[in-house]
Amino acid sequence: MPERVYNFSPGPGTLPYEVLQQAAKDVVNFNNIGIGLIEMSHRSKEFIAVTDTAEKLLRELLEIPDNYKVLFLQGGASSQFFMVPMNLLGEGKKAAYLNTGTWSKKSIKEAKLFGEIDVVYSSEDTIFDHVPTGDQYQVSDDAEYLYFVSNNTIYGTQFPEMPKSEKMLVSDMSSDILSRKFDVSKFGLIFAGAQKNMGPAGITIVIIRDDLLDRAGETVPTMLNYKTHADKGSMFNTPPCFGIYIVGEVLKWLKKNGGVEGIEKINREKAALLYNMIDSTDYYRGHAQKESRSMMNVNFNLPTPELEAKFIAEATTVGLNGLKGHRSIGGCRASIYNAFPREGVVKLVEFMKEFEANNPA
Amino acid sequence: MPERVYNFSPGPGTLPYEVLQQAAKDVVNFNNIGIGLIEMSHRSKEFIAVTDTAEKLLRELLEIPDNYKVLFLQGGASSQFFMVPMNLLGEGKKAAYLNTGTWSKKSIKEAKLFGEIDVVYSSEDTIFDHVPTGDQYQVSDDAEYLYFVSNNTIYGTQFPEMPKSEKMLVSDMSSDILSRKFDVSKFGLIFAGAQKNMGPAGITIVIIRDDLLDRAGETVPTMLNYKTHADKGSMFNTPPCFGIYIVGEVLKWLKKNGGVEGIEKINREKAALLYNMIDSTDYYRGHAQKESRSMMNVNFNLPTPELEAKFIAEATTVGLNGLKGHRSIGGCRASIYNAFPREGVVKLVEFMKEFEANNPA
Repeated sequence: MPERVYNFSPGPGTLPYEVLQQAAKDVVNFNNIGIGLIEMSHRSKEFIAVTDTAEKLLRELLEIPDNYKVLFLQGGASSQFFMVPMNLLGEGKKAAYLNTGTWSKKSIKEAKLFGEIDVVYSSEDTIFDHVPTGDQYQVSDDAEYLYFVSNNTIYGTQFPEMPKSEKMLVSDMSSDILSRKFDVSKFGLIFAGAQKNMGPAGITIVIIRDDLLDRAGETVPTMLNYKTHADKGSMFNTPPCFGIYIVGEVLKWLKKNGGVEGIEKINREKAALLYNMIDSTDYYRGHAQKESRSMMNVNFNLPTPELEAKFIAEATTVGLNGLKGHRSIGGCRASIYNAFPREGVVKLVEFMKEFEANNPA
Repeated sequence: MPERVYNFSPGPGTLPYEVLQQAAKDVVNFNNIGIGLIEMSHRSKEFIAVTDTAEKLLRELLEIPDNYKVLFLQGGASSQFFMVPMNLLGEGKKAAYLNTGTWSKKSIKEAKLFGEIDVVYSSEDTIFDHVPTGDQYQVSDDAEYLYFVSNNTIYGTQFPEMPKSEKMLVSDMSSDILSRKFDVSKFGLIFAGAQKNMGPAGITIVIIRDDLLDRAGETVPTMLNYKTHADKGSMFNTPPCFGIYIVGEVLKWLKKNGGVEGIEKINREKAALLYNMIDSTDYYRGHAQKESRSMMNVNFNLPTPELEAKFIAEATTVGLNGLKGHRSIGGCRASIYNAFPREGVVKLVEFMKEFEANNPA
């Protein structure tokens, strides 16, 4: 096999090659101190500098206001599905949720354990092929927050703009954080598993507004209270050190490559290349409605499941990997996160043209 | 600095050098498939093989009976402090706890949220300088389990043998799992953060008896129910892939080096070298009572705090790192987990002799 293939995996997703190369050195001997990155005390000055750098860069790149804390946690976005309502709701409290795919559905299920959940919009009837516009739902006055998943990995949809609401927003941005500019100050809480746009699996970033840290009740276990981690700079217990390090390196790479504004431009170009290809023929059909199309996950079908299987298999032989759609909806999916190179998208488009020519419906 | 120093860090702790070197290759290009280990889908056949290997080796090395499940979780041992009682206790249920240090104390605090906790022994009065023998406490008939921390990292104590009880045992083995033989079948549940004897921070191993998987109530969030992870082979959500991989590599190294029986022999030799040195002079004083001494963490004091500071500083200059005791009790601590080489212990003993000669009390 070649030194490196184009990896369209939906997550864990492709990372910048230079980050992997740097990690290879540091895992064995961090900064030439004679100790590997993953065997270093998390309380050493060297590791504290790693954490500080990662946080500083995230604050800079997302323009996070000072009244927000950044937490490096474990347990994946799936743990945030219950931690958010466990910390922010409680007996008699209410929140509004937008149901736009598998991950919002799962978070609604967990939230119901901790409060009254008002599902103010659902696109489930049309197999989650779109996200709502602001006039399609209403958030009641007594809701604590409006929850939504900014990008739906499985169905390839994305909110073209963040929802507007008088209530604070809470969002699962696992699959599109750092891919485009947005205003953090409209949010009470943002969380994201790192393994798509920021780093490896095993680390979750939480950005939380200061005043929300005191909401958890007495019965919340210490480790599940955001305040525990906020008060100790994510070092209440041993943090996911390797993950924090990789996130820091990815953020250095992102800053060097134009930051969020710079990558957003490239992301729009990459997505346009693929959607233009899809729209230019009836052979490929996109799953998402046009206004809801994701820049991160491009889902499409071929004329038959047999052709889809052949497409995925042949693509793999030319170094285009991971194009199989999620098992719940099938078809093909090209995940083109921040670190996915433009050349790989160009190569996929060429392959799509050739495949169509060689395999008429 | 030299290519590699002797790293006495209490955790994350030193790992086998050959594991780090292998990881460096795989992080960039796993098994030459053209994709790095940390950007590989957790559902790819390559990564499923990584997980299967790690589980198979753990089962083999610890002789885990077939009626136990092995789970790869996140959140550290600290998350098990509440997950254990959340899953195994509940309204009106009771458990017995042995309080032998900081980590048992913290787990007692969390357990009280979920049941009646009977602290049947505490060594807190003597600054946790020992663990109890079986005749020093009694477990009541209505206790669901007897909980203990097999090795107390901070105070350098260890149960010389696992407690015997008619009730099932539950143990936090974060700092001595795989360091010595023991009978898994006496346990209902064993957990261990990996970052001392098994791998990097960010992965926790849970070994749980099958029949305990159905105990969690309806109000337990999906991610906090052991059954969720048992039913899906630790792949309900994206697992801590890098951690699972490193654990697998460490287990391969352990198997090659004589397995648990082989490493236990070496661990006993390493500890004896240090304790013999301490016992041969009044200059160094051990913290733990002799019968409770840990093979993993050797705590000792010098005649004055000033000499301790000088000792730690000078040791660092000759490549003996991480000897500072925990902030809660001060002094010195040499953590000599499985992967810590015997030569490093010999070098420390020589250094201790020289330091004593050059710095009379």
